[in-house]
Amino acid sequence: MTSTDYQPSIFSGHTPLERARQVVGALAATAVQRDRDAGLPDLEVRLLRAAGLLDLVVPQHYGGQGGTWPEALEVVRALSHDSGSLGQLYGNHLGLLIAPHLSGSTAQQAFYYRGTAEHQWFWANALNTRDPRLRLTQTGAGEFRLNGVKGFGTGVAVGDQRLFSAVPVDGGDPVTFVLPQDREGVHAQEDWDSFGQRRTASGTVNFDGVQLRPEEILSGSSSEQAFSTFSGVISQATKTFIYLGIAESALVSARDYLRTQARPWLTSGVTQASHDPYVLRQYAELWVALQGALALARHAATTVQAAWCQEWALTAAERGAAAVDVFAAKVSATQAGLQITSRLFELLGPRATTTELGFDRFWRDLRTFTLHDPVDYKLKEIGDQLLNDTWPAVTQYS
Amino acid sequence: MTSTDYQPSIFSGHTPLERARQVVGALAATAVQRDRDAGLPDLEVRLLRAAGLLDLVVPQHYGGQGGTWPEALEVVRALSHDSGSLGQLYGNHLGLLIAPHLSGSTAQQAFYYRGTAEHQWFWANALNTRDPRLRLTQTGAGEFRLNGVKGFGTGVAVGDQRLFSAVPVDGGDPVTFVLPQDREGVHAQEDWDSFGQRRTASGTVNFDGVQLRPEEILSGSSSEQAFSTFSGVISQATKTFIYLGIAESALVSARDYLRTQARPWLTSGVTQASHDPYVLRQYAELWVALQGALALARHAATTVQAAWCQEWALTAAERGAAAVDVFAAKVSATQAGLQITSRLFELLGPRATTTELGFDRFWRDLRTFTLHDPVDYKLKEIGDQLLNDTWPAVTQYS
Amino acid sequence: MTSTDYQPSIFSGHTPLERARQVVGALAATAVQRDRDAGLPDLEVRLLRAAGLLDLVVPQHYGGQGGTWPEALEVVRALSHDSGSLGQLYGNHLGLLIAPHLSGSTAQQAFYYRGTAEHQWFWANALNTRDPRLRLTQTGAGEFRLNGVKGFGTGVAVGDQRLFSAVPVDGGDPVTFVLPQDREGVHAQEDWDSFGQRRTASGTVNFDGVQLRPEEILSGSSSEQAFSTFSGVISQATKTFIYLGIAESALVSARDYLRTQARPWLTSGVTQASHDPYVLRQYAELWVALQGALALARHAATTVQAAWCQEWALTAAERGAAAVDVFAAKVSATQAGLQITSRLFELLGPRATTTELGFDRFWRDLRTFTLHDPVDYKLKEIGDQLLNDTWPAVTQYS
Amino acid sequence: MTSTDYQPSIFSGHTPLERARQVVGALAATAVQRDRDAGLPDLEVRLLRAAGLLDLVVPQHYGGQGGTWPEALEVVRALSHDSGSLGQLYGNHLGLLIAPHLSGSTAQQAFYYRGTAEHQWFWANALNTRDPRLRLTQTGAGEFRLNGVKGFGTGVAVGDQRLFSAVPVDGGDPVTFVLPQDREGVHAQEDWDSFGQRRTASGTVNFDGVQLRPEEILSGSSSEQAFSTFSGVISQATKTFIYLGIAESALVSARDYLRTQARPWLTSGVTQASHDPYVLRQYAELWVALQGALALARHAATTVQAAWCQEWALTAAERGAAAVDVFAAKVSATQAGLQITSRLFELLGPRATTTELGFDRFWRDLRTFTLHDPVDYKLKEIGDQLLNDTWPAVTQYS
Repeated sequence: MTSTDYQPSIFSGHTPLERARQVVGALAATAVQRDRDAGLPDLEVRLLRAAGLLDLVVPQHYGGQGGTWPEALEVVRALSHDSGSLGQLYGNHLGLLIAPHLSGSTAQQAFYYRGTAEHQWFWANALNTRDPRLRLTQTGAGEFRLNGVKGFGTGVAVGDQRLFSAVPVDGGDPVTFVLPQDREGVHAQEDWDSFGQRRTASGTVNFDGVQLRPEEILSGSSSEQAFSTFSGVISQATKTFIYLGIAESALVSARDYLRTQARPWLTSGVTQASHDPYVLRQYAELWVALQGALALARHAATTVQAAWCQEWALTAAERGAAAVDVFAAKVSATQAGLQITSRLFELLGPRATTTELGFDRFWRDLRTFTLHDPVDYKLKEIGDQLLNDTWPAVTQYS
Repeated sequence: MTSTDYQPSIFSGHTPLERARQVVGALAATAVQRDRDAGLPDLEVRLLRAAGLLDLVVPQHYGGQGGTWPEALEVVRALSHDSGSLGQLYGNHLGLLIAPHLSGSTAQQAFYYRGTAEHQWFWANALNTRDPRLRLTQTGAGEFRLNGVKGFGTGVAVGDQRLFSAVPVDGGDPVTFVLPQDREGVHAQEDWDSFGQRRTASGTVNFDGVQLRPEEILSGSSSEQAFSTFSGVISQATKTFIYLGIAESALVSARDYLRTQARPWLTSGVTQASHDPYVLRQYAELWVALQGALALARHAATTVQAAWCQEWALTAAERGAAAVDVFAAKVSATQAGLQITSRLFELLGPRATTTELGFDRFWRDLRTFTLHDPVDYKLKEIGDQLLNDTWPAVTQYS
Repeated sequence: MTSTDYQPSIFSGHTPLERARQVVGALAATAVQRDRDAGLPDLEVRLLRAAGLLDLVVPQHYGGQGGTWPEALEVVRALSHDSGSLGQLYGNHLGLLIAPHLSGSTAQQAFYYRGTAEHQWFWANALNTRDPRLRLTQTGAGEFRLNGVKGFGTGVAVGDQRLFSAVPVDGGDPVTFVLPQDREGVHAQEDWDSFGQRRTASGTVNFDGVQLRPEEILSGSSSEQAFSTFSGVISQATKTFIYLGIAESALVSARDYLRTQARPWLTSGVTQASHDPYVLRQYAELWVALQGALALARHAATTVQAAWCQEWALTAAERGAAAVDVFAAKVSATQAGLQITSRLFELLGPRATTTELGFDRFWRDLRTFTLHDPVDYKLKEIGDQLLNDTWPAVTQYS
Repeated sequence: MTSTDYQPSIFSGHTPLERARQVVGALAATAVQRDRDAGLPDLEVRLLRAAGLLDLVVPQHYGGQGGTWPEALEVVRALSHDSGSLGQLYGNHLGLLIAPHLSGSTAQQAFYYRGTAEHQWFWANALNTRDPRLRLTQTGAGEFRLNGVKGFGTGVAVGDQRLFSAVPVDGGDPVTFVLPQDREGVHAQEDWDSFGQRRTASGTVNFDGVQLRPEEILSGSSSEQAFSTFSGVISQATKTFIYLGIAESALVSARDYLRTQARPWLTSGVTQASHDPYVLRQYAELWVALQGALALARHAATTVQAAWCQEWALTAAERGAAAVDVFAAKVSATQAGLQITSRLFELLGPRATTTELGFDRFWRDLRTFTLHDPVDYKLKEIGDQLLNDTWPAVTQYS
């Protein structure tokens, strides 16, 4: 499929949510194939851009659409109906493009917000602070070079702007910075080869004497300010809505198959699978579980937005309360989603396991992506708040 | 405890919700004893009246407070922190006082709404349409007598107005009517003796030549009008919020016990039970389950209110959609509540089983009351809507 | 009910298991009442004695029946059909009467085994080593006195021989000893008042200058010998079979009620509750869960017996392997039992909650007794064996 | 891998179970690749033959090994450690080679048993009686021809003897028969392309004027004789042990990964993943669930063997009781297996999702194969027996 395969005019939706659904529609026919191929999601990024979704949360006074987090998270969920990969690409993009706001200077915030609005930049990253293999060397006044390797990058090969972190060779804290697509010496390998989230352009990134300019280094804000670490909460929130989107897509696919292709069991006494009392009960139970997770997630999105609006006035307690709400929604979405994506087959029967339908990709994507950070520790942190009045520790994962 | 045991001045809360919490506070010391005694909940009714909660949903132009269903349901939930019995008494009251609105004439609607606001009437009932033993005889022009028996009444002995149904001796559809407390010949037995919901003044009601006046008979509205059967949805909604209140009360009790009395396990390596990793995880998991059910219930309350505001313009589809939302919340609250009220003991240890604490009453109340109508059939009806576009059948239970 | 209420001739069963069932039959009519009354289980002990069950595991060369642990544990399970209390009384008895074998001299082993066979002694205890309040004073050569208090005793008021532990006032390790029923100065309070396991004669025991004879002190064996601590494994095994018996009794009661009294749901389309597709499915699911736990427990009973037969040749690894098998069965029985005793009501409907039937006592007994030691730590110890090759730590609970 | 890739001498195990494990060992290095390739399992069949497993259940007086069903089912389970596909190929083989015994004449029973022992025939089939597309025409005295199509065949391309059913063109009941590998005109398509059980040579079989000899037609026994339909029970039993083998293989793989490659979570406070309290607890919980299913399955295998030994004296009630025991084990294995194969990843972290490890194949195989017939209806039939004394209906699935 090439760029001529779709007409920009198809993105006629009045709202971002409508246009997100149109993106999913444009991609529907190739969903199974793209999962199988893995490969670079360049088509997906082009469609996100064509649909005008990339500057959704850029504030209006920087030229963006000024969308709220509840709006943006619904777009994340809608896009995840195509695949967890598309959800992750867009969800990461949202969480990354705010980095200069949270961690940069006022000038950097303005430059990157404006650029994202004007050029519809797509953001990617290889930030993982647990990987110390990328080293930063100062080679002169205001002259820096990067050498080494960074694991677990996502979207680097297709990102217009890419967020990385490196460790100075002469010691000191890791440094976070932004590199544009055309910077020489950055080589993204596509060596992520997992059974899920296959089309996220993920893998190791090699840096070979890459130039880094001073204005690309995010100066960093005091980590004592709760807002400066708020991207951790945003990241957990986007994951939650991706999980919901995958699970919902699975339920919708199951419903459509049930209505049109599933056969009633031979001793069921009914003539349509959708009249089987056990099918009805179980479909409803899975749906109810999803609705509960969705209601929690929407509540959390509201809390996130309220915290976001506090900006630098955000207190540690307000950040913590938002994190706990998001964690609860994430746990609930994980539990519901794993049940849905595995159990739905019981409603459909063995013919629904054909690779042509690709219904296993819901479980594969969700199973893979929900491993990002362990649910048990999210629960532990919620419990610590409820029982011991302790807010979640601030890490990359919270 | 007598009527002099509390001062009306304690009900100083500005909102009904605050006053509901004050009622619970006034009752807290006797919660375990009242569960054990069962008996007539006359104290509870006096407190509801003193707190000004009985006319909460009576429209303002009839002199009431004009509260919405979301507001009223939160009051139901708050009262259920005392006990499922108190929740049931109040929840039933709400669902019964609207009967003349749904099924009566305009005059009856006005009379009963105004009376409830002016006299703070408490409503009770023995409506069960599956029990045909109460017979109605016309003894003259506009003269009727009631004889027989009605099972599964609730609150009849303490209700100012009581809703009943009877079957005409000469055939015809059952008739619904309202009898005041002082009507001669109505004898409420308190023969409900269950392990849960013990203090609801429930049981069989005997009628011995009881006079019935024409103006007490609710003329009935066409059952083809969706609004006329809306009390079924209200009833399911109040149950949902009662379940949530019981479960939440259990969780709060567990938290307080954990913080002050529970002992860490001998091989746990921690010095406080609330630091045990398994305790933290499980408490959080139960709490997350409750939050999901609560979020769903609040969503359903909004749908209920929107449907209520349609009044006679309500369509069958709108009624059905409200019912499905309420059913989903009810299923979720049932599942979460049963887990919470049984598993919380695992966090607290064997000393928490003492009858002095009475922590088993949460499970006993919830287990009993969630049997009102089977969850499996609620799920089946949800499934039928999702898969076959069929709205739930209209019964006393939906 | 007095000792003349039953005829010893009723215990005509050829096997201990048959006679155990006859005991349960003789007690059936009073099961609900005895649970309500709590009080001293003297009737139960008399029936156990009359049925010839008290010397079941006493070796034949000491005059006992020489029953194996698999046989004895099936008797425990059968007796628990009456109540968890009866199961606990008998299960404890089995675990206590072997104490002189595990911890005493050869003479003590012989004396107590022979006495149990000859006099059909019933054994009880207040051993809890975590309670240091009972003190032992040497008042002369071979003269000892006991003063103080011991918590969490079981059956002390009705036990012919009672096992206790005390701390020497002049320091040293706790001492374990056996006191006969007629020893002066031992006062068992019946202050255990929990919602479950109500008729076990449990509570605090006061000691007021009680004489202790040297030959009553179990000399103790080296705790480095695995067999000397094997009563911990026996105790976990008896609990497992008690849980199974309670759950099975609940399922049987539910089946009988379903067949004779339950009503089909109004929209079920069937004329008998036992034909409802959801009832059939759920009853079977609960039953399958119980069968799995039972199969595991029987496997564990075989392992226990093999370890028991090793006697002093038992290795730590063999003891550990038996413990892991028993733990697995105990976890499984706990999980299945809690589901069964709570969910069975969903099959039966609200009328099954009447206190006359007393069906809640299954949950109350099981919920209480499964708190004895936390399941999470049993799982942790199993995991430690599987993943880290570490045997469970030897405590009173393993 | 060709037939020279292994030495028959590797199958030195003294017991069939040992040799089955050696087969799995010989296949271990290619497990992931074979799952990916799908394709014909000719290598696997050669190994089964080389290991001397094909005549395991052939009675000794026909030259076979005379293995019991409990022995054979343990071999099924051991082989399923390689893959569900290998388990299915061998499990089907066992259930098919007994067909002449159950449905043929004495001469057919002798011929096929002896041939299987002498030539180590591998058996395959396309029996599905719900597919009527294969037609049988009598073209002369004792001359028959087959034309048409049969779906859902398994192993037909690699089977030495293949069991089929066809519908006579001139009416009458379907006819079951056996065709050898070299019969002309049978064309097995490999058009099964599912995400699980990929290497079973499954798919549609075309018949183009295929000759059928009278002695190949299984004369059929009265379906009123319980033994004649016993292959339905055998088939459910082999599936159960396949599920167990897949789940166990998943747990073993997880354990090995946990011990050698998994990393502890950053806030866990431990230095090895296998010391994490949540990992320990969850691994043990999954293992306990598997042990319960395994204990049930072994119990069922004993019941199956006892029924098998009854041969033609088998009563409907004995057959029914064996079916119920097998169903219970199958339900339990399905539930445990689905939990294990999906949740194990939570113990291992995201790196365990790499396609190189192929850990998703456990879930894919189990999820696919457990759809063979619905668990809900197995539960319903168990419930019908327990509550209504009704034995399971005799179908191809029971």
